[in-house]
Amino acid sequence: MEDKIVKEYQIKKIIDNKIQNENDRIIKEQPLTVFVNGYELVTLMTLPLNLKELAVGFIASENIIDDYDEINSINFSHQDTIVQIEISKDVDINLYKKRTLTSGCGKGVTFTNLQDCALDEVYNDNFKINSSVINQLMSEMQKKSDLFLKTGGTHTAALADQNSIISVMEDIGRHNTIDKLIGYSYQNKINLKNKMIITSGRVSSEIIIKVLKQKIPILISRSAPTSQAVEIAREKNITLVGFTRGNRYNIYNDLNRIII
Amino acid sequence: MEDKIVKEYQIKKIIDNKIQNENDRIIKEQPLTVFVNGYELVTLMTLPLNLKELAVGFIASENIIDDYDEINSINFSHQDTIVQIEISKDVDINLYKKRTLTSGCGKGVTFTNLQDCALDEVYNDNFKINSSVINQLMSEMQKKSDLFLKTGGTHTAALADQNSIISVMEDIGRHNTIDKLIGYSYQNKINLKNKMIITSGRVSSEIIIKVLKQKIPILISRSAPTSQAVEIAREKNITLVGFTRGNRYNIYNDLNRIII
Repeated sequence: MEDKIVKEYQIKKIIDNKIQNENDRIIKEQPLTVFVNGYELVTLMTLPLNLKELAVGFIASENIIDDYDEINSINFSHQDTIVQIEISKDVDINLYKKRTLTSGCGKGVTFTNLQDCALDEVYNDNFKINSSVINQLMSEMQKKSDLFLKTGGTHTAALADQNSIISVMEDIGRHNTIDKLIGYSYQNKINLKNKMIITSGRVSSEIIIKVLKQKIPILISRSAPTSQAVEIAREKNITLVGFTRGNRYNIYNDLNRIII
Repeated sequence: MEDKIVKEYQIKKIIDNKIQNENDRIIKEQPLTVFVNGYELVTLMTLPLNLKELAVGFIASENIIDDYDEINSINFSHQDTIVQIEISKDVDINLYKKRTLTSGCGKGVTFTNLQDCALDEVYNDNFKINSSVINQLMSEMQKKSDLFLKTGGTHTAALADQNSIISVMEDIGRHNTIDKLIGYSYQNKINLKNKMIITSGRVSSEIIIKVLKQKIPILISRSAPTSQAVEIAREKNITLVGFTRGNRYNIYNDLNRIII
């Protein structure tokens, strides 16, 4: 496993202008081209780990499947750089490639895709978490970020319930870590409506739209959101937390889901 | 300017389980759809600043133009979410949308695009820098990262010569900061073959391929490279530095361009 995702290189480490020769562990990346029913959908650059979860999560995020049972087969080839997914319904791939621009919908949020604009709000008034778990789970996730700890080159995201982490995914891309968690949840029939996602990465609109599409009520980040992400959270009822570091965090949208 | 790129929100800051209500400055993002000679090329999510540099840099990175003079006109519309670029040569946009997978070329690097595989090496044996400028210019760039200092939500990249910073660009995306610098250089007829790029972001293959295409001899990052980026640097003669922090940095590929 190790040699598939991490490679050692001889490098020079310079500290105070002094040279040390060292072996350094560096994360690998590879392209993964996703075909659905024979149509080429996308090429993702990714860490070669949890590729099945990535492929399933990506087509779930694109609304191509609503349920894991719609998948008939998943076949990897060409040293895992191509995945062919067969699904049981007809799919017009061009629809998913088309991004329609809109200058705003609802209360004025700009979506890049009209379909996203029409997405339902997230409702789950029973899912609440204690304030104390926010910093605690962020720190737990970071301890479980094996590849980040070894290489410093990955983003990490975790799926959690009120109290504990269910799965941790790492990738070279922020988006891929979220898709891997969604794919994992589809495979394992996990109900996402009473879970939360914790991420090391910044929260742009593309990230929060993935969360919105799965109706995940809480998103917790170590980093900053964009203003568009804050507005989508407020319009669609997603609890959004950022800058979760040490003993502090920021609440951009609350909805009484956090008990302080 | 400020209100076009940063927005204030009332948020709750939680420190040690105590709530403070505060105003927080958050970075904006918007879609920018790029048309070339009437053909839709791509929609980028970007910080609405230096959009002209971004559009020009993006089409330069895609090899659609080799020189700024090939551009006849650049027109923004729809509140700067659409840019129409007219260029003086015929262009087959489908060529640029097609990503051909290859399992390796040259000494075994995996490119996602066969055209990138055929790119020339970078030669500039006269461009050398002193070791001391590496940490110094990184720290200077960070002080000039206005939006990062205000919001914590951006990536930064800078163009520099041997001694000083020429231009600093910020964006919500790593890739966009590099494209904005390239666009700026095309507009201002700056020779990139004796310059370096400094970036806050991780160096994936897509980042180093942008640098390779412009024949920029030195790339300096605050973060980690991927193994594919290291291999492209070594195959194509790019000096690659990472983890530039405080008084230290790592050299992944040297080529005697750094004088220690």
